[in-house]
Amino acid sequence: MQKKYLMTPGPTSVPTDVLLAQARDMIHHRAPAYTEVLREITARLKKVLGTEGDVVIFGSSGTGAMESSVVNLFSPGDKVVVISVGYFGDRYAAIAEEFGLQVIKLSYPRGSPADPLDLEKTLESHPETKGVFITHLDTSTGVENDLEAFGQVTNPRNVALIVDSISGLGSSPLYLDAWNLDVVVSGSQKAFMTPPGIAFAGISSRAWNMVERSRLPKFYWSYQKSKDAYNKPIPQNPFTPPVSLLVAFNEALKMVEKEGLENMWSRHRLLAEATRAGLRAMGLKLFATGGWGNGVTSVLPPEGVDGGKIVRMMREEFGITIAGGQGDLKGKIFRIGHLGYVDRLDIILTLAALEMTLARLGVEVELGSGVRGTQEVFLKAEG
Amino acid sequence: MQKKYLMTPGPTSVPTDVLLAQARDMIHHRAPAYTEVLREITARLKKVLGTEGDVVIFGSSGTGAMESSVVNLFSPGDKVVVISVGYFGDRYAAIAEEFGLQVIKLSYPRGSPADPLDLEKTLESHPETKGVFITHLDTSTGVENDLEAFGQVTNPRNVALIVDSISGLGSSPLYLDAWNLDVVVSGSQKAFMTPPGIAFAGISSRAWNMVERSRLPKFYWSYQKSKDAYNKPIPQNPFTPPVSLLVAFNEALKMVEKEGLENMWSRHRLLAEATRAGLRAMGLKLFATGGWGNGVTSVLPPEGVDGGKIVRMMREEFGITIAGGQGDLKGKIFRIGHLGYVDRLDIILTLAALEMTLARLGVEVELGSGVRGTQEVFLKAEG
Repeated sequence: MQKKYLMTPGPTSVPTDVLLAQARDMIHHRAPAYTEVLREITARLKKVLGTEGDVVIFGSSGTGAMESSVVNLFSPGDKVVVISVGYFGDRYAAIAEEFGLQVIKLSYPRGSPADPLDLEKTLESHPETKGVFITHLDTSTGVENDLEAFGQVTNPRNVALIVDSISGLGSSPLYLDAWNLDVVVSGSQKAFMTPPGIAFAGISSRAWNMVERSRLPKFYWSYQKSKDAYNKPIPQNPFTPPVSLLVAFNEALKMVEKEGLENMWSRHRLLAEATRAGLRAMGLKLFATGGWGNGVTSVLPPEGVDGGKIVRMMREEFGITIAGGQGDLKGKIFRIGHLGYVDRLDIILTLAALEMTLARLGVEVELGSGVRGTQEVFLKAEG
Repeated sequence: MQKKYLMTPGPTSVPTDVLLAQARDMIHHRAPAYTEVLREITARLKKVLGTEGDVVIFGSSGTGAMESSVVNLFSPGDKVVVISVGYFGDRYAAIAEEFGLQVIKLSYPRGSPADPLDLEKTLESHPETKGVFITHLDTSTGVENDLEAFGQVTNPRNVALIVDSISGLGSSPLYLDAWNLDVVVSGSQKAFMTPPGIAFAGISSRAWNMVERSRLPKFYWSYQKSKDAYNKPIPQNPFTPPVSLLVAFNEALKMVEKEGLENMWSRHRLLAEATRAGLRAMGLKLFATGGWGNGVTSVLPPEGVDGGKIVRMMREEFGITIAGGQGDLKGKIFRIGHLGYVDRLDIILTLAALEMTLARLGVEVELGSGVRGTQEVFLKAEG
């Protein structure tokens, strides 16, 4: 017997109550029982996003919601800036280009966060820019961008700031209204500890004005269709929603409410700090040089060891799924997720297994050192 | 205590084993455990679609897969024919128009199936037509189109035939390869007795040739991205799939395999015939005048009774969710689904409740007459 642990930056572990909520008898998406679920989720998502504006929900992965922000706000030829600190920033650029936007890409070396001053200069040289896309937490590197600072660049210039916070939301603070963000897209399968299949977007009034002018075709992703369906006397989704997932998502959002959003952010920060302290105490080097987010930590394997080998052994020998590198970083880093339904002992057991994995791979590592590193952080936080 | 019965044309009831499969511990969509699920589902869907070609899977509702067929095969200005026998045919036309296709609409009076001869004439007058869209079973009216006959019109002309079989597949025969269909889209929440959230499409080689020439932008819906991800050494989805739903879908497809596809079609046909016989025996009139499909039966309410009132009383008094009319047909018809996880006694109890509902609404109805009508069909079928 070997238990399974999902320590990736998504999909993340799902609490049993949330898993079981999916198994409730199916309800019809146009019947009153569903309406309550939809109303509750929408109200809870507004709180989570820090907005009094509209929230739309999609049956899709986060990428679908990313696409939605492109096709709802823009028209072919519109100039936009895409800030990329990793794989998912590149994805936003690829989507925007696919739909015919003129993309100025601000790319940063992998492992570094973006600098708001660069955006300021770019917008000065390109005053016709209509929107800026940014990743909150790019899980490919573990780097988090300072959304508030970017909002302070875009807002006075009346440029829309569109945020992929698929992994950031819930693990770090985000305030859509107060930080002048215009679209924030996220999903069910990260901090919100629900299986994948639901994505959502919070939409500012500036973004709605852009929706009116957008000439890109849209049907499934239409914000207007979602808004119209929700504003019917009995709120609905425009198309059949993933009912069982939404019922489960509502349970997870109740747990978020119970923990409190601020407490949830603090928990993620503490887990992230402990993970990083433990890794360093083991003698490992972090990949990112700054801007560490709270959802995932990227690590350089010891000299001469392939990151993929560590990932494989962690899974096969200890039942712990961590993540390797994506794209160019394949084999060069490994990533430990501490996102969603994760507590202190999950971090401790993961580092203990990592110590044993490295030992088996012939790396000189002091057993217990990583664990001790995390314990010190946890004890200090309590003191 | 009042049990709940879902007798709508989707989402349909989900067997307990399938519900519970959603509640299994989350697995990571890039880890080996998921690969097996994806391989199995893909192989099973090929059988269900009657194709040796490719099948792509989306985290979305059926409408998303409908959109996928438009954006993957066509370019702006392409001429297409959309055959509409109801609400969902109209939806295909709306999607095609939204994406800039030139749509010739062949509309039929609600309640009648489409005539292949009309398509033949239309294609003769419009030889530049690149594709024809058709609904297999349009649940808004319960009418089913003869796909094989339409394939015989489109195939010799090398025109792509694109089928919305979201509600048809599994309840009536369909052979993608043998009938020369080019794209068939369907979903998890109808005959396949899984919660909504998964859509899929079978794709012919003619369709793949069109994919190569298509100039409509696509990212989330890209068939090519799906194919490339599946053809990696370890088959994957391009974007995070709805893992828990797919695990459950695989269980449902195992049940389909066990029942046998032909037996599944026969069961649906028998349930449909019994439902219609029972309704007639109660003195009710069917809405459709021909082309009755096996998934849903549309019924005219007795003179002077609002269809919506019947739907409401069935739900509130008996816990049975049936469907009202959609769009123009709101209040004018009601619809009984017999799609998916449904057996003979579900039909009997539904008609018994309908008899009581009508009696309470002051309609003169012989109690037991509808039930008897179904029983006669069931007994006769057993020989």
